[in-house]
Amino acid sequence: MELGLVGLGKMGGNMRERIRRAGHTVVGYDRNPDLADVHSLEELVGKLSAPRVVWVMVPAGEPTQSTIDRLAELLEPGDVVVDGGNSRWTDDERHAEQLAAKGIGFVDCGVSGGVWGLENGYALMYGGDPENVAKVQPIFDALKPEGPYGSVHAGRVGAGHFAKMVHNGIEYAMMQAYAEGWELLEAADAVTDVREVFRSWQEGTVIRSWLLDLAVKALDEDEHLEQLRGYAQDSGEGRWTVEAAIDHAVPLPAITASLFARFSSRQEDSPQMKMIAALRNQFGGHAVEKKK
Amino acid sequence: MELGLVGLGKMGGNMRERIRRAGHTVVGYDRNPDLADVHSLEELVGKLSAPRVVWVMVPAGEPTQSTIDRLAELLEPGDVVVDGGNSRWTDDERHAEQLAAKGIGFVDCGVSGGVWGLENGYALMYGGDPENVAKVQPIFDALKPEGPYGSVHAGRVGAGHFAKMVHNGIEYAMMQAYAEGWELLEAADAVTDVREVFRSWQEGTVIRSWLLDLAVKALDEDEHLEQLRGYAQDSGEGRWTVEAAIDHAVPLPAITASLFARFSSRQEDSPQMKMIAALRNQFGGHAVEKKK
Amino acid sequence: MELGLVGLGKMGGNMRERIRRAGHTVVGYDRNPDLADVHSLEELVGKLSAPRVVWVMVPAGEPTQSTIDRLAELLEPGDVVVDGGNSRWTDDERHAEQLAAKGIGFVDCGVSGGVWGLENGYALMYGGDPENVAKVQPIFDALKPEGPYGSVHAGRVGAGHFAKMVHNGIEYAMMQAYAEGWELLEAADAVTDVREVFRSWQEGTVIRSWLLDLAVKALDEDEHLEQLRGYAQDSGEGRWTVEAAIDHAVPLPAITASLFARFSSRQEDSPQMKMIAALRNQFGGHAVEKKK
Amino acid sequence: MELGLVGLGKMGGNMRERIRRAGHTVVGYDRNPDLADVHSLEELVGKLSAPRVVWVMVPAGEPTQSTIDRLAELLEPGDVVVDGGNSRWTDDERHAEQLAAKGIGFVDCGVSGGVWGLENGYALMYGGDPENVAKVQPIFDALKPEGPYGSVHAGRVGAGHFAKMVHNGIEYAMMQAYAEGWELLEAADAVTDVREVFRSWQEGTVIRSWLLDLAVKALDEDEHLEQLRGYAQDSGEGRWTVEAAIDHAVPLPAITASLFARFSSRQEDSPQMKMIAALRNQFGGHAVEKKK
Repeated sequence: MELGLVGLGKMGGNMRERIRRAGHTVVGYDRNPDLADVHSLEELVGKLSAPRVVWVMVPAGEPTQSTIDRLAELLEPGDVVVDGGNSRWTDDERHAEQLAAKGIGFVDCGVSGGVWGLENGYALMYGGDPENVAKVQPIFDALKPEGPYGSVHAGRVGAGHFAKMVHNGIEYAMMQAYAEGWELLEAADAVTDVREVFRSWQEGTVIRSWLLDLAVKALDEDEHLEQLRGYAQDSGEGRWTVEAAIDHAVPLPAITASLFARFSSRQEDSPQMKMIAALRNQFGGHAVEKKK
Repeated sequence: MELGLVGLGKMGGNMRERIRRAGHTVVGYDRNPDLADVHSLEELVGKLSAPRVVWVMVPAGEPTQSTIDRLAELLEPGDVVVDGGNSRWTDDERHAEQLAAKGIGFVDCGVSGGVWGLENGYALMYGGDPENVAKVQPIFDALKPEGPYGSVHAGRVGAGHFAKMVHNGIEYAMMQAYAEGWELLEAADAVTDVREVFRSWQEGTVIRSWLLDLAVKALDEDEHLEQLRGYAQDSGEGRWTVEAAIDHAVPLPAITASLFARFSSRQEDSPQMKMIAALRNQFGGHAVEKKK
Repeated sequence: MELGLVGLGKMGGNMRERIRRAGHTVVGYDRNPDLADVHSLEELVGKLSAPRVVWVMVPAGEPTQSTIDRLAELLEPGDVVVDGGNSRWTDDERHAEQLAAKGIGFVDCGVSGGVWGLENGYALMYGGDPENVAKVQPIFDALKPEGPYGSVHAGRVGAGHFAKMVHNGIEYAMMQAYAEGWELLEAADAVTDVREVFRSWQEGTVIRSWLLDLAVKALDEDEHLEQLRGYAQDSGEGRWTVEAAIDHAVPLPAITASLFARFSSRQEDSPQMKMIAALRNQFGGHAVEKKK
Repeated sequence: MELGLVGLGKMGGNMRERIRRAGHTVVGYDRNPDLADVHSLEELVGKLSAPRVVWVMVPAGEPTQSTIDRLAELLEPGDVVVDGGNSRWTDDERHAEQLAAKGIGFVDCGVSGGVWGLENGYALMYGGDPENVAKVQPIFDALKPEGPYGSVHAGRVGAGHFAKMVHNGIEYAMMQAYAEGWELLEAADAVTDVREVFRSWQEGTVIRSWLLDLAVKALDEDEHLEQLRGYAQDSGEGRWTVEAAIDHAVPLPAITASLFARFSSRQEDSPQMKMIAALRNQFGGHAVEKKK
């Protein structure tokens, strides 16, 4: 089938390649003309036969919104827009309504896979009406991993991004789990070769996983991670997961701890710990460290 | 080779079977005569040729201590005792010294694998002097999974149990990660079929793992886990992990949150939340729920 | 001066009394005619001389919104509306704009004091333009405690509710601190009379506070809090505090833990702990507790 | 009465002064002869009439142990030793037994008050047999604050240090509560003068406390705490509190979060966050920050 694909960056470019390998036609647009197949969204829409499917793979927020705004003008009733970016699930219903007013369908799709997706396939979680999903299905089948799993129609519009958001929340806490264990092994002197312990865990243990395999790869490149700063970004989904949990009064202690650890990692100096130091000094005369 | 194996319960029994399948001779002792090959530790020791290897697979604490005490009397210089139970790593050095005084070697070994070990192999983390480890190596090779990973000589005496302890700490936080994500998906109504989302995650995602596979199995048996109470034991290693972290001033927020969640799950009613309710009532006149 | 006061419940009724004791005239309206001085907002506005000050003390959300909507119709340029309820600070700017369109001023005010406010005074945190604040100042002075502290012009519109929100977040963690300590003292058997320990802490310690005094009062009424269920509501401000922190990438581990503890306290059975139990059963054959 | 006081540092020196002001005789010994009244423990014991009371106010661990060892040699049946230092409660029973073997009594006493104790009095929590406590009572009465509270006989030997340990655990979480709130107020721009908000909270609020008063003092000295590094020591009691909670399966999420925040504050760079960064780079190609 034919697909219009908007956004050909790290993710989108590899997705175009995987879809083409599956025998489909992809017309790709990107603001960067070196990456693009066409020069504008108009040209992209013009090259596709109705009913069209256009997959939007651009950053969440303004870039996604302005793309959907333009597609709402260009597409026709019966066409379908897929938002495969990292939009917050609360945006999806709004986008669906905006497009439905023009008779255009909408499907939201959370995509996992990172730099490994081209070879291994992308895990896909999508939400929307069955008739809209059906129009995109061949593309989902091309993108997903080859095994029996890896894609799911998670529910109505928004369900795809919601499921992907929770996936990322879980990912935060799993990464934190390995990271805490690794730091403790490195800090204690009982274990002489922490990397070999991690390596051994890849089979037979309860904690074997793909993330563990990646941890071993990372340690093979830099045994004690001495090249790195302990500085971790967060991408939005972790924050939204905690906010969704608060909305539903669901306690998420491990996921939230993982998010806060990232916040702390980005602070040069911790304001709250200054207050702790100041209070200790006030009541106990405990020495404080002055800034240099 | 020949192995003496003390403790033939759920773990020990399956381990005997796996070692025998690898062609070794196992003389097993258990307090339960229905499980045992011999009637006493004396008889077990008498049936083995020197240098003997005796693997102790009984509960940590008194059962392990009394077994080691008795083996210290029965074994000869050059023999080796392996503690494969869930002993705290801080016990290992003491046991090693106790046995060394008789010329007997000691190796500690953390074993992971649960009910799946018989078929898949057991992940092994062991600590001790190389010459003692060498005497046990054929047994380690029989027990471990078939692939290149799954066993490690983690360091000196105690390193095996330390590595296994941290493994379990990581396991706590990974389980908590999936559990938190599952609860949030069930609480929100965005996703209509939570089990299918979990199932789909088994391929292509960042969070694919053996524990995730088990979660899907559990949901296939009871889609909303309605048969279960939200009640989780903890086995010691989680507590020891947090204590080791405190000793080394290593922050473990996610692992500790996971341990505390288990503590809370076992409380019929939370004393600390009674105090919260009492304080709210005192300052705000907020209604409290009286016990019935 | 004259004040219109809308909402004469537990808080509003006592505030009317305290303002009257200070010599001001209060015209109070409540949906409950037994509490009210007038029968409608129209009548309330009619009884006040311009420039009027009307203090809204009704629940956040729809009740506050509909009151402000009606006051926007009834009041005149130069009048001022004070929102003293528990509105989210993000509502304040919207309310200010809505009223400004009619030339009416707006001040938001967070109020602390609960059932003790009538006697001790209410702590007040308010936000808004200085000229609007100035019109309300005599009322603030009547409500606040007698000492030098207890009220603050915290900044522009929204600052009052923001400061009050953070106050409540701090309150959550302080209550949790005492509650955790109390539970530990009760659980351990080292201390024979936990209540007397709490009582003694009221002087000379680092942790003496008004909340501690209240804890002692609560324990005097019910030494082991046996009459209460460990069940704690949360009122919105705790959640908003965490959400504001997420917006600013500020880690709030203790406040968030306190909020989550309240969420957990309200669950009959913990879904996430069912998943933990299910996973333990899957990999280890660990017994689970079935629901009865 | 007469008291022997061992250890005349920041705490002990002020305590000597307060006891003398109450009319008692204090014979003080310190390794530093500039501080001491006598030159040795022998001389100290020799100057006291039986039954003697000797208060040990030296650092926990070896210094306390060696002092008690020496006093066990020098004192006579009927004398009493008080350990007023920061010993772990688990040391107390051992010390009591050691001294009881010589007929010497033992009382443990947790002391709070810091640099303010000389003027305000010291909060005291003590444990031991009533007849031993009775011999020390005049000293307790001299040290404690003047009001009705501030000292408690908490139970048998060990109860004093246990109660003080929990006091400090609560203190950690209370300090963290204010610190988190302060950081959030500083990070958001809603509140223009954070210090004035803190100042106002000193009356009428739910969160008023002595620690809050100290926070205001600290902010008056350095409004944004710009002179300080966000670096906080911990003194042992926080760690022991968490360990005691683990022993009793009591969840302490807020206190533990506060302890871990201090651990993190002392790390130049976070090892666990390096692992998070490494994993994000592995699966997503996310940029990492290299160490310079």
